[in-house]
Amino acid sequence: MKPRLFTPGPTPVPEETLLELAKPVTYHRSAEAKAILAEVSEDLKYVFQTSQPVYTLTCSGTGGMEAAVSNALAVGEKAILCTAGRWGERWRGVLKAFSADIVAVEVPYGKAVTPEMLETALKANPDAKAVFTTLSETSTGVGHDLEAFGKIVAGTDALLAVDGISGLGAMECRTDAWNLDLVVTGSQKALMMPPGLAFICASAKAWKKIDATPVRNFYFDLRRYRKSLLESDTPFTPGNTLIKAQRASLKRIRAEGIENLWARHTRIAGATRAAVEAMGLKVFAERPNSALTVIAVPAGIDGSSTLKALEKKYGYKLADGQDAMKGQIWRLSHMGYTDAFEVLGAVSALELVLIESGFKLEPGAGVSAFQKAYATSK
Amino acid sequence: MKPRLFTPGPTPVPEETLLELAKPVTYHRSAEAKAILAEVSEDLKYVFQTSQPVYTLTCSGTGGMEAAVSNALAVGEKAILCTAGRWGERWRGVLKAFSADIVAVEVPYGKAVTPEMLETALKANPDAKAVFTTLSETSTGVGHDLEAFGKIVAGTDALLAVDGISGLGAMECRTDAWNLDLVVTGSQKALMMPPGLAFICASAKAWKKIDATPVRNFYFDLRRYRKSLLESDTPFTPGNTLIKAQRASLKRIRAEGIENLWARHTRIAGATRAAVEAMGLKVFAERPNSALTVIAVPAGIDGSSTLKALEKKYGYKLADGQDAMKGQIWRLSHMGYTDAFEVLGAVSALELVLIESGFKLEPGAGVSAFQKAYATSK
Repeated sequence: MKPRLFTPGPTPVPEETLLELAKPVTYHRSAEAKAILAEVSEDLKYVFQTSQPVYTLTCSGTGGMEAAVSNALAVGEKAILCTAGRWGERWRGVLKAFSADIVAVEVPYGKAVTPEMLETALKANPDAKAVFTTLSETSTGVGHDLEAFGKIVAGTDALLAVDGISGLGAMECRTDAWNLDLVVTGSQKALMMPPGLAFICASAKAWKKIDATPVRNFYFDLRRYRKSLLESDTPFTPGNTLIKAQRASLKRIRAEGIENLWARHTRIAGATRAAVEAMGLKVFAERPNSALTVIAVPAGIDGSSTLKALEKKYGYKLADGQDAMKGQIWRLSHMGYTDAFEVLGAVSALELVLIESGFKLEPGAGVSAFQKAYATSK
Repeated sequence: MKPRLFTPGPTPVPEETLLELAKPVTYHRSAEAKAILAEVSEDLKYVFQTSQPVYTLTCSGTGGMEAAVSNALAVGEKAILCTAGRWGERWRGVLKAFSADIVAVEVPYGKAVTPEMLETALKANPDAKAVFTTLSETSTGVGHDLEAFGKIVAGTDALLAVDGISGLGAMECRTDAWNLDLVVTGSQKALMMPPGLAFICASAKAWKKIDATPVRNFYFDLRRYRKSLLESDTPFTPGNTLIKAQRASLKRIRAEGIENLWARHTRIAGATRAAVEAMGLKVFAERPNSALTVIAVPAGIDGSSTLKALEKKYGYKLADGQDAMKGQIWRLSHMGYTDAFEVLGAVSALELVLIESGFKLEPGAGVSAFQKAYATSK
């Protein structure tokens, strides 16, 4: 049986990237290493759609979120948290650890925070120093309207900090054009890499605030990364083999073109949702994003057992819901190094296990709806 | 020309470990992933020579140092810093960032802090909460007498925190028997891996202090790692491909046996020092350790140019001195996945470039001294 990774991180890694990782390790302070970091940093600017430098941190996405919070906020400063699930709650955890004064704008799992809710919160809290939110809420499949958020926050003194960990590179996200001040992502999602690197960029507005904020830590002190990157270097020993491999995946992204890449994800996500509905299932997210499709487990079906059967019988590894959502949803990623034919296979496998579980379903309902939606979209 | 890595981190990685890194990425919350982390954690206890759990952080060594400082010290608490070079200064940077009250016990580059100096500092500062020091000071080649340090600190309320990043696994270090309270290391030195993981363990005495200290960050909050590891898990997305590869290198270390591994490094280091002296050069460290040999550049020789020639003509990549030491020393690592025959090759190449630079040297002086010292030691 062939194992197939459909979890919303880690995601499949291109073969040429994996082979980079098997090459002998080299010194991280050589001219060659600096040239590689410079190249990766340039390609990241393209992926982020920003003219600001993008910094490479050796850590996972949460480390990048900690960098955003700890550099932008002093103790006790007010932060508006727009949270729609577990990854919004991750921001809350980091904000709490750094003693922020949190004003939470919360919606139930499956819903999205609206621009109007954010606008109201900002008006009620003119002293808020930053807004923290999520591009793709991977726990529910919801996407936030960051273009609208950006327009609202740009008119205030607050910064807009975005967890783009599972969305960036999979759905439209324009850091500069949308006025996003701090954007964080990780290597292991749409950037087609194993986990181990996080990336962050900061707008001029963000840097102004960072430079006026007391230093709160060392490893995530962005001033150090800014200074080092001027010489195409890192302040601390970087995961240099990961950076070299990231270069290979970024080349693939550049070759496809970021807008084509967004369009590919949009098209696959649309076809997946059509399949879900044709199978008599429901998409869980009210405002679904293109990085993953989250499916509500239908009544009478044991969600966790279905996923186990999918993996055991057919090799398809989807993700269960997290915490209280366990058994309630199925999370199917179509991020990064995957295509419509592979997702079609996952739909086929899901059909099979559902039928085997006694769920009423016409064989082929899902795959034909997928095919039809895919063929008639661009 | 065959490239050969002799820098004191990164170091050569075994082929079977590199091949692990080229395997398809898998989900980090699976039963298989937990079993791997459990196995790695057990093998790390063996390497650390501790019965306490060892935590795996996705970051480089400095992140592990930040975890030690931020978990063990509250704002303004007193710390004794025993520093003998650049990596002692790294502790100072982290301590400053976390607002410690630093009492520095400093020696010039090339010297070691003595147990007597530490004892005096502790007597003068009975309110010190912790002592921070370095096992192998990679910037100078000095090793500290941690067994003696441990005996002294154990009689006080202070913790002993050790940067074992480039020493652990290359030289004797017994966490429990020597009363080391916080020990940090990184994957890319004697543990035969690329950079990207740090490891830390804490004694019961350290945990008592950590549990009484306010939380100061999130990503490096050791309480979270302690809780997760009870279920063989990590609190945040780990570098799971690195962890899997680390397993392969740890198996190699277990197969060799930690005491044999220490003995191998001691023997190679002794032979290297014999070669250095026979070539008319000087070992820079007053109290040299076995992880690397640091050689003082002789008068009339351009240290940096020699290293460039070594790499360009013969493929041997040694490290230059850092900061003010640039051009003053050569740093030759014999850590991890390397053996006497490879180090002999490096001595041969160094002889050749020195002769080509006009340095008076009988060809074979270094290699024959190396061979003699190696053959007559165990």
